[in-house]
Amino acid sequence: MKTSHNRGARTPARSAETHLGACGLQQTMKLAILFCFLAASVYAETGYDAWLRYAPLQGADRIRAESEIPAVVAGLDTSPLAASAQNELIRGLRGMLGRTLRAEPNLPGEGAVVLATLDELRRSKPQWNLAADLAPEAYWLKRVVSGGASYIVITARDPRGLLYGSFALLRQVSLGESLAAVDEKSSPYAPVRWVNEWDNLDGSIERGYGGRSIFWENQKAREDLSRVADYGRMLASLGINGCSINNVNANPRILSADMIPQIARIADAFRPWGVRVVIAVDFGSPKTIGGLDTFDPLDEKVAAWWKTTVDAMYAAVPDLAGFVLKADSEGRVGPSAYGRTHADAANVVARALLPHAGILLYRGFVYDHHMDWNNPKNDRARAAWDNFQPLDGKFDDNVLIQIKNGPIDFQVREPASPLFGALEKTNQAIELQITQEYFGQSRHTVFLVPNWKATLDFDMHALPDVPTPVKALAAGRTFHRPLGGFVGVANIGLDENWSGNQLSQANLYGYGRLAWNPDLSSQRISGEWTRLTFGTDPKVDQAIDAIQLSSWRTYEDYTGPLGLQTLTDIVGNHYGVNVEASERNGWGQWHRADEKGAGMDRTAATGTGYAGQYRPPVARVYESLATCPDDLLLFFHHVPYTYRLHSGKTVIQYIYDSHYQGAAAVEQYVEQWKSLRGLVDEQRYKQVLAQLQYQAGQAEVWRDAVTMWFHRASHLDDAAGRVGHYPNRFEAESMALDGYTVRDVTPFEDASGGQAVACPARGGSCSAAMKFSGAAGWYDLRVQYFDQSNGISHYRVWLGRQLLDEWDANLVLPRAIRLDSTSSTRRLIPGIALRPGDEIRIEGRPDGNDTAGLDYLEIVKETNSPIATR
Amino acid sequence: MKTSHNRGARTPARSAETHLGACGLQQTMKLAILFCFLAASVYAETGYDAWLRYAPLQGADRIRAESEIPAVVAGLDTSPLAASAQNELIRGLRGMLGRTLRAEPNLPGEGAVVLATLDELRRSKPQWNLAADLAPEAYWLKRVVSGGASYIVITARDPRGLLYGSFALLRQVSLGESLAAVDEKSSPYAPVRWVNEWDNLDGSIERGYGGRSIFWENQKAREDLSRVADYGRMLASLGINGCSINNVNANPRILSADMIPQIARIADAFRPWGVRVVIAVDFGSPKTIGGLDTFDPLDEKVAAWWKTTVDAMYAAVPDLAGFVLKADSEGRVGPSAYGRTHADAANVVARALLPHAGILLYRGFVYDHHMDWNNPKNDRARAAWDNFQPLDGKFDDNVLIQIKNGPIDFQVREPASPLFGALEKTNQAIELQITQEYFGQSRHTVFLVPNWKATLDFDMHALPDVPTPVKALAAGRTFHRPLGGFVGVANIGLDENWSGNQLSQANLYGYGRLAWNPDLSSQRISGEWTRLTFGTDPKVDQAIDAIQLSSWRTYEDYTGPLGLQTLTDIVGNHYGVNVEASERNGWGQWHRADEKGAGMDRTAATGTGYAGQYRPPVARVYESLATCPDDLLLFFHHVPYTYRLHSGKTVIQYIYDSHYQGAAAVEQYVEQWKSLRGLVDEQRYKQVLAQLQYQAGQAEVWRDAVTMWFHRASHLDDAAGRVGHYPNRFEAESMALDGYTVRDVTPFEDASGGQAVACPARGGSCSAAMKFSGAAGWYDLRVQYFDQSNGISHYRVWLGRQLLDEWDANLVLPRAIRLDSTSSTRRLIPGIALRPGDEIRIEGRPDGNDTAGLDYLEIVKETNSPIATR
Repeated sequence: MKTSHNRGARTPARSAETHLGACGLQQTMKLAILFCFLAASVYAETGYDAWLRYAPLQGADRIRAESEIPAVVAGLDTSPLAASAQNELIRGLRGMLGRTLRAEPNLPGEGAVVLATLDELRRSKPQWNLAADLAPEAYWLKRVVSGGASYIVITARDPRGLLYGSFALLRQVSLGESLAAVDEKSSPYAPVRWVNEWDNLDGSIERGYGGRSIFWENQKAREDLSRVADYGRMLASLGINGCSINNVNANPRILSADMIPQIARIADAFRPWGVRVVIAVDFGSPKTIGGLDTFDPLDEKVAAWWKTTVDAMYAAVPDLAGFVLKADSEGRVGPSAYGRTHADAANVVARALLPHAGILLYRGFVYDHHMDWNNPKNDRARAAWDNFQPLDGKFDDNVLIQIKNGPIDFQVREPASPLFGALEKTNQAIELQITQEYFGQSRHTVFLVPNWKATLDFDMHALPDVPTPVKALAAGRTFHRPLGGFVGVANIGLDENWSGNQLSQANLYGYGRLAWNPDLSSQRISGEWTRLTFGTDPKVDQAIDAIQLSSWRTYEDYTGPLGLQTLTDIVGNHYGVNVEASERNGWGQWHRADEKGAGMDRTAATGTGYAGQYRPPVARVYESLATCPDDLLLFFHHVPYTYRLHSGKTVIQYIYDSHYQGAAAVEQYVEQWKSLRGLVDEQRYKQVLAQLQYQAGQAEVWRDAVTMWFHRASHLDDAAGRVGHYPNRFEAESMALDGYTVRDVTPFEDASGGQAVACPARGGSCSAAMKFSGAAGWYDLRVQYFDQSNGISHYRVWLGRQLLDEWDANLVLPRAIRLDSTSSTRRLIPGIALRPGDEIRIEGRPDGNDTAGLDYLEIVKETNSPIATR
Repeated sequence: MKTSHNRGARTPARSAETHLGACGLQQTMKLAILFCFLAASVYAETGYDAWLRYAPLQGADRIRAESEIPAVVAGLDTSPLAASAQNELIRGLRGMLGRTLRAEPNLPGEGAVVLATLDELRRSKPQWNLAADLAPEAYWLKRVVSGGASYIVITARDPRGLLYGSFALLRQVSLGESLAAVDEKSSPYAPVRWVNEWDNLDGSIERGYGGRSIFWENQKAREDLSRVADYGRMLASLGINGCSINNVNANPRILSADMIPQIARIADAFRPWGVRVVIAVDFGSPKTIGGLDTFDPLDEKVAAWWKTTVDAMYAAVPDLAGFVLKADSEGRVGPSAYGRTHADAANVVARALLPHAGILLYRGFVYDHHMDWNNPKNDRARAAWDNFQPLDGKFDDNVLIQIKNGPIDFQVREPASPLFGALEKTNQAIELQITQEYFGQSRHTVFLVPNWKATLDFDMHALPDVPTPVKALAAGRTFHRPLGGFVGVANIGLDENWSGNQLSQANLYGYGRLAWNPDLSSQRISGEWTRLTFGTDPKVDQAIDAIQLSSWRTYEDYTGPLGLQTLTDIVGNHYGVNVEASERNGWGQWHRADEKGAGMDRTAATGTGYAGQYRPPVARVYESLATCPDDLLLFFHHVPYTYRLHSGKTVIQYIYDSHYQGAAAVEQYVEQWKSLRGLVDEQRYKQVLAQLQYQAGQAEVWRDAVTMWFHRASHLDDAAGRVGHYPNRFEAESMALDGYTVRDVTPFEDASGGQAVACPARGGSCSAAMKFSGAAGWYDLRVQYFDQSNGISHYRVWLGRQLLDEWDANLVLPRAIRLDSTSSTRRLIPGIALRPGDEIRIEGRPDGNDTAGLDYLEIVKETNSPIATR
């Protein structure tokens, strides 16, 4: 097994563009693929182009686009952003139509795509009478017929709107939507639409699963920042206007003088795309970097230091968007050191930013991670409200409180944070996590838009008579705040496909689309992304959309249903299963499952009182078992396993059923994907197939672990008889072992039967053998082994003297140094003819500290069916 | 431009197999493509697997195969070849069916694929009654139902037959042919079925266009010979049983003692696939290597040296197949040095080989390359017959005369060599050239099987009453010779796709299939190859077969019709056009075209007498203008340009028409190929598209050059008014030049108008500009520039101030250090909207000695049409 750190070392590769410099590009790539013999790109689809592939339009879409789109792009605005827009229009239409539009600086005497601000049009074409009260950054696409020529006008108040309008037009063409009578105005829902990168200055990324940082390496900005420019383009296509370029767990060094030129280089790369740089800062910086003896926010020296430091930064990066600050949380210093409030802390920094129109995002993710588990009144979920609600009105107007969607930490399902709408006189922004920390870390397909929508559309009842959904509160619309918006923790890195997983790109796309317009449906967003990314074959689109749109529920089903939260190792890598890892410690991600029942009592009546932090109409729903939705039941209530849900099913049976359903759903995804063979390009087809097959194996690990844990805890049997009974399974510990020794696995649920076998031999091999006694037939073998990160063990599977399969345990998985559910991996060996009496022998050769562990062998009747004819 | 030598330096990459060690394989590859995250291959189609892809069967083919193929492969023969066969059957069926058959050493009590010699079956299964008089290496595929079980028996006299039968079975499954009642016996047509590699010990390959040698590097066998093993498998799949591993222009060093272990390593890599190593030797070796003062074949010391040397070789490589020897030809030493005959030379070597059952292939390609052009009776075509016919009966029985298909040298069209059948008491073999020396060098698609068939099927009338086609003569069948067969000069190298061009792989496949069975039709062979290599979609197969089957005629049409031979630079790279290069020199590839007419008079009556070397029935046909086929008219006769062909068309008009037809046909190939978008995997789709687009440009260069030459020579106009009139063409020399200077091009026909422009500036740029005065509309631009091999110049094309396109002139082309038809290259810039008055400016930045030359710009109405919907 290799850790994911190794992946980022790759040379970043791109799909070459069709015409411009394709060969030169290839030469620099070192990926010596094929002969750079001719102009056209020779690359397979890598995912690098993401949703901006501009693939050639086919058939009717092409004919329509050729007839609707004029031959000229007239760029009447001379700003750099308008130039980017004009170039992008030419590039995109060239890709889709094979035609290069004429770039002209003035309105020609013929039809044209016209890029011009409203002011410019009022001056130069008053007879067009284009008047509108457009918001900043908004755009207007409008067909204008005038003087015998037909124009597609992209207009806006500002160049940024022209850029966003250009991407919108290209999106419509890509999607096959007609521009014949286009008349579309679109305004961003909120002014702040940012991404946060949790990139460390050493090039690693906290919770990053798409390779190493595109920004940093070895304490400096990367030499080659072309990936930053390309990322800026991706962000601009979604209307994202700010990007924090270092981890919120900030290295104070970011504010040292020698970092300023580094930051300026990154800002330069982003600037043509209207993406403004944001810096994450450490509150202790005046002391650690500034040489002061204090960082007390009320100390004048400290205020002066912040001002001087910010001024220096703006001198180099005049369009810096601002700072993000995490204080007094998870070990980071904050105002509590001096008995000051979060408002004191935020305002001292914000006031330094104010003269430059910079803003401060102050994170609301503040909690005590040394809470006493034994006190049933303690509740981390209360922390955001408890910390910030009393300070409402104390924050300056260029401060926003950056509030995570839920009260805990991006769990598989949480209610909306009660802090939304509790701040009426303070700016807010919602923080969503695009990177899949608790969602399978780009190894599981989870399309997060439906998850985010569940929060964004949730009505907080912050006002008596009008709906006050979270999105309106976060955007500042409800209480007419000057600022508000969206922050997404991004999921990109140096991996060729940016995200470590082709389908995970949809989360970045979906976040950006929601930040622009949270009223878009999940279906719309998924449909757009799929068609832009994989083309317009309806069979492909239906299959991918079906997977994406059900994937969150599927993941919830096999990881932590009913509001239990993700039942992962919360003190470890947040990936594998460990039901008890969240209990009996101070971190507060408790679910309080025990032998009698499960769930946190967060009611006002008998529990922690958390439910009472919501406005009364919401609090009432959660407070009562009768009205609390099943999906959040165990988040708000502790109930016995025999408690019946609204569906009539008991809690324990629901836990069993949902896990089996979830695992079966992923197996179904594999089959759905296989139906796309030949319809999706070979490269991405094989990548996604491999990823889904891996996920299917992991879903089974989760299924078995969670159900076994609750079975052991509850002593209640599965009504369907599945849990604890695995008729096709042969435990390694029960096989004839040669060299392998039996180990108890911790936690017990991480291995089938609580045990596995490991090979202690250095330099040698071990084997585990069994005799097959079933009926003769075609079978699939599934070897459940442990792919640890501390070595590359080697496995071989023999049928008698015939070698059936062999592989290295070298997958890129989260760090796991022992036999557990993170390293537990399934190897499929399909289509084996077995006869009674056959010996199947699995041989493992350990390497380093990887002990070539084995959990079990499953022998199942062949499921492989003929692949459908196209 | 890069020379092709650079290409071989790549790490050879492979398509990973689906199951076995895929990840391990990727790790060794250094082509860090994507995450080696899971078991399945993540590669696009590279061409590495050639026709042995074993792609999953679909639909009905799969259902039938699953029902027809048993679960066991019983390998009753314990030879290494039978083990290779058994492994290949398992590998192939696993690829196609996703099932791993059981490898068993004995007949099971159930159905099986049975691999067993006839002798073994007679012993173990007498009741099956399988008796046949099978030839050596022949195989028999037979369905046997016995004792309630159904067997597919692969049987043969020898293990080699078992191997060939296994590949035949896999081919049938791949092609979707039923095995339900299979009963197929197949024998090789001749015992010698070899390939010759013209690989030099330094790793270069004479006339190689698929990268560097897979055998040699830096005077040694390569460290990594895995490509040799994989090549052996490809050869075995075709029934090829011998391979000469070094150039016939042999480095004497090959026979030095320190080379023996190197040769042995290569033999080891080939041996599991039944491919026996052949060595090309230099006749002067006794002197140059052996330290003797003579290499006189009749000198006893020389004979003893050959014996000792051969013995030593066989001690290390006991299954060496023999030697190939080129003597007294193209500057190589031979028996003439001592007044000895070719028979003397051949026999002294053959007698050393005889005790080891080794054989000698003695090349019949012997001619004088200092012939006097002024003597109209001189004729190189006569050389083979003149040299060898008088020696008939003088050669030992383990000698074969290796005769090229035609009397000259692999020209685009030649008659069959009259030496076939002229030797009645001497073994023969036919030498075919798979590598496309005179056929576009893997940059032009030319499927050679129809060319070879034209010779193989040609009746030499060597016997009065029975047909005596060349294939029967070469195979030794006609005169009942002990030996005979086929030698193909191979086209493979280290390129990932082996051949430098995906479609050129078909020539190796076609050669091998013909060597096994020359009665197969071109259609059958093309169809097999296409389906094995690109899958069974009928639309794909029809399009590819249509291109392949017409490609030879197309290439002939634009390079040298009517028997003129390939009108290339015969004293240079054999690639670009140079009509007069073959004249006025001693090489004898004369066509004697002048101002009055063209063609070599080779008649007995008035010419060189060559026609009289054929047996009378053939000689009569060629001798007479009335019966000589048009395709060979100018090979046998000198006629005036106004001479009328059988079709009624004049020679000159045929030359014009065929060149325009040929060039138009390649343009049509591009369109045919484009119709396969989405049906062929992206990687190969783009590669072949790029190659065909390049070929279309080159075909136009040829068209214009040859027609202009004959127009200037004959002063006869093209009846269709095309030659000399290029309405959409703007000559660079007529543009407004800034820095560029006008150059006369030599030969004049290599540039449009006989002139081009070159940029002398070092470190600067030049430009050529023109004003467009046509109607407003969508146009395609075609820039004809010169991509020299002595630098990488850079080009930019501007429309006013808009950059339309830019590229490096870095294609992998044959060596060309000046402005000529080899470096002449077309850049397509499709879909440009032009308006009257537009300025188009081409800017060239020279590099090294590459002068960024320009020939012309063509501006043609847009031809790009909407791509058909799938």
